[in-house]
Amino acid sequence: MKLNPLDSDTLARLDNLLGKGGLLGAEPRYLSEPRDLYHGNAAAVARPRTVEEVAAILSLCNENHHPVVPFGGGTGLVGGQVSSGTPAPLIISLERMNSVRRVDPHDNILVAEAGVTLSEAREAADAVNRLFPLSLASEGSCCIGGNLATNAGGVNVLRYGNARDLCLGVEAVLPSGEILRGLKGLRKDNTGYDLRNLLIGSEGTLAIITAADLRLFPKPDETVAAFLSVPSPVDALTLLRRLQETIGDVVSAFELIHHNGLDFLTEGGFNLKSPLAAPSEWSVLVDCGSSLGSNLTERLENALMAAFEDGLVLDAAVSQSETQRAAFWNIRETIPLGNRKVGAISSHDISVRVGRVPAFLEQGALAVHAIAPELRINAFGHLGDGNLHFNIFPPKGRAKSEYQAIRGRIIQTVHDLVHEFDGSVSAEHGIGRAKTADLRKYSDPTKYAAMRAIKSALDPNGIMNPGAIFPTDPD
Amino acid sequence: MKLNPLDSDTLARLDNLLGKGGLLGAEPRYLSEPRDLYHGNAAAVARPRTVEEVAAILSLCNENHHPVVPFGGGTGLVGGQVSSGTPAPLIISLERMNSVRRVDPHDNILVAEAGVTLSEAREAADAVNRLFPLSLASEGSCCIGGNLATNAGGVNVLRYGNARDLCLGVEAVLPSGEILRGLKGLRKDNTGYDLRNLLIGSEGTLAIITAADLRLFPKPDETVAAFLSVPSPVDALTLLRRLQETIGDVVSAFELIHHNGLDFLTEGGFNLKSPLAAPSEWSVLVDCGSSLGSNLTERLENALMAAFEDGLVLDAAVSQSETQRAAFWNIRETIPLGNRKVGAISSHDISVRVGRVPAFLEQGALAVHAIAPELRINAFGHLGDGNLHFNIFPPKGRAKSEYQAIRGRIIQTVHDLVHEFDGSVSAEHGIGRAKTADLRKYSDPTKYAAMRAIKSALDPNGIMNPGAIFPTDPD
Repeated sequence: MKLNPLDSDTLARLDNLLGKGGLLGAEPRYLSEPRDLYHGNAAAVARPRTVEEVAAILSLCNENHHPVVPFGGGTGLVGGQVSSGTPAPLIISLERMNSVRRVDPHDNILVAEAGVTLSEAREAADAVNRLFPLSLASEGSCCIGGNLATNAGGVNVLRYGNARDLCLGVEAVLPSGEILRGLKGLRKDNTGYDLRNLLIGSEGTLAIITAADLRLFPKPDETVAAFLSVPSPVDALTLLRRLQETIGDVVSAFELIHHNGLDFLTEGGFNLKSPLAAPSEWSVLVDCGSSLGSNLTERLENALMAAFEDGLVLDAAVSQSETQRAAFWNIRETIPLGNRKVGAISSHDISVRVGRVPAFLEQGALAVHAIAPELRINAFGHLGDGNLHFNIFPPKGRAKSEYQAIRGRIIQTVHDLVHEFDGSVSAEHGIGRAKTADLRKYSDPTKYAAMRAIKSALDPNGIMNPGAIFPTDPD
Repeated sequence: MKLNPLDSDTLARLDNLLGKGGLLGAEPRYLSEPRDLYHGNAAAVARPRTVEEVAAILSLCNENHHPVVPFGGGTGLVGGQVSSGTPAPLIISLERMNSVRRVDPHDNILVAEAGVTLSEAREAADAVNRLFPLSLASEGSCCIGGNLATNAGGVNVLRYGNARDLCLGVEAVLPSGEILRGLKGLRKDNTGYDLRNLLIGSEGTLAIITAADLRLFPKPDETVAAFLSVPSPVDALTLLRRLQETIGDVVSAFELIHHNGLDFLTEGGFNLKSPLAAPSEWSVLVDCGSSLGSNLTERLENALMAAFEDGLVLDAAVSQSETQRAAFWNIRETIPLGNRKVGAISSHDISVRVGRVPAFLEQGALAVHAIAPELRINAFGHLGDGNLHFNIFPPKGRAKSEYQAIRGRIIQTVHDLVHEFDGSVSAEHGIGRAKTADLRKYSDPTKYAAMRAIKSALDPNGIMNPGAIFPTDPD
């Protein structure tokens, strides 16, 4: 697929189309990403204000075979938003499509444009006493468009599902410039193929999502979190199953934390530590929410007491206030920042079948330590979903750069193990540019071929985010 | 797309491939559907036992451009399983792929082959103290493959979602004969496009689903149902919102029932009536489930008492036993049978935004009665999802055949109104062959064109269920 550079004529037309402030040069904030692994290029940055402007941009670029890269909050961790391909693309930033178009607490729907940050969407729901449950560490800057493009996960998937499950419909623009008007707010609609879910998670390679119907939920009246020491990941899983059976659907998050993650907070200069006096190797943060009159805290405490007696829990702190609950969560949410301070040699966003997590942790550690026994592993995350962040660090006092030579071997070892476990090498971050080779290597070949066919059918000129999901080199 | 009749050579190869009992003639049970509106034809019926046999069948048919029609329990209501096209297709019945391959109560996964009936799947879950929440009137005969092919809905969508939400992965065969092996049982996997959801709801026009990872849930320890008289659909909705806010996620079903539906039970010879002494025009069946210790019945009774005092509920019967709860549900589940005895002039599986249901009911009745004031409307179903079955009947003592002349006008009037309400003319039944014209007429044109492009990309020879979703005549 031959793509053409954006010429001065096209740029002039775009400038004219978008008006004052609509077309920017290749400003650095659009060309980097949080881990500083990728640096992009751009012919220009278009900042449309309406779906019609997005349609006009895409139509023009499609006609002339110019590459485009959609840009949301810029927080993606796999380089999906940063292209360094040739020719330099037009970045289409949705930052000026940032209205919450409608909030309907009766129908439990919030209509947000792509450039609304996740925090803003959550606050707009909260203002009408509703919950929009998607929640991730970067929620202050990531945007709804990017959340949907990457099918974002986060901490509440266990109870409420991922971004896909929280979206009833999308407005999107296909590369042809045709607008898909899917904001009907219907809970059930079986008229034809599920384009919504096809576009969600397609990382801007098929269309640009410009707005979405988001699902709201009644806000729990009573919430409680507990920070627990557990003997092992197996015991943590047993505890989760037991809580789900005895106190029901109220468990909204169940996060596994390794003591390395807590140590890294100290090492990284964060004044945060476990609320438990003597944290063991493994901790769990469990979060629950329920409606009035269900005696949630009491029921959780009773369940934890029984688990303590059975040896599934070694020590527990149950939040006595919203402030304390927030403090527990702050520890969990700061772990990724601690990781960045220490500096990971490699980071892996993996999932396996939930029951296989303990075996994966054990074999993963063995495999990594067989390469270099001094490496530190911080495995943490969404145990209830089988999704862990399995990150590899140098020993204290040494830099990740010293391990550059074996980085590739570590990555391949971890990914091969995930594949042996019939798992996923990208549970929630997507493929982006970081994992195109993994996708090609580990995917079911039928799935990969069908994806290719769909890509060609919907983006025949290959202008949409070239290099993301599929490598640009021939295969 | 030119399709070829199945010649004797191909049939001999299929017979050889499938072994004894594998290839049947065009037996009548594969050629009709529950409402007797469509009668199909078939060159033969293939009954594969394995995914490899399905692959071999499709590969052969694709190579020679023979049409195929996948067949599950045969309960679909839009003719998706019954083709009368030319040339006569090969029906591929999944009835011999009827194993529950695995039940894992720890990971809450059940792996069912396409030919497992919904009842069998539910029972297999129940046997390990888990709930598979998909539930519909035809669950004794409909099959998992068909449930997924049509993205079945049913009575528990409000709490647990539709078939799509209850499936973690599929094994399927593309027309090329390539097998998509998607049974990893992962809760999170963001490696590429969402083929699972594309195939779910595609009504056998893109692939044949042969097995699925189904999601299980902890079985509620405490369940309670209430049969209520309500002043109006608006009050019913207000009640639903209030229950969701005050007693939380425990409401699993909220079904609206019109007194015509209850009358039709008597008229149809069923010995069933409302448990309430003097049922009003509108009733509601609400069903709740929760875990031990949450005092569910008491909380529901308190909430209903408060609603009664506020005039939202006129009368209520709360189930005092599982037997009584089952009796309430039996009334609801028998309504479609009552409808068939009376004989509908037309049936509409519609959805609108939840909050718009009362206005739709009002305007729908006005529009239908403007055509013929004596017609009876039975509107009932899943109020909490905005999905109603809006069915039109002759007055007592007259036959639907007397209204054949205005049937088309009634259908168009109802569908036009749904379209004005930005709703769906197929909320849960699919398009099949009954609604291809509606899909073309009412669909977003961008969506329709994208669907066409995907169909051509994945089924280039057009062998998969021709005439379903897309009409066979050129457009």
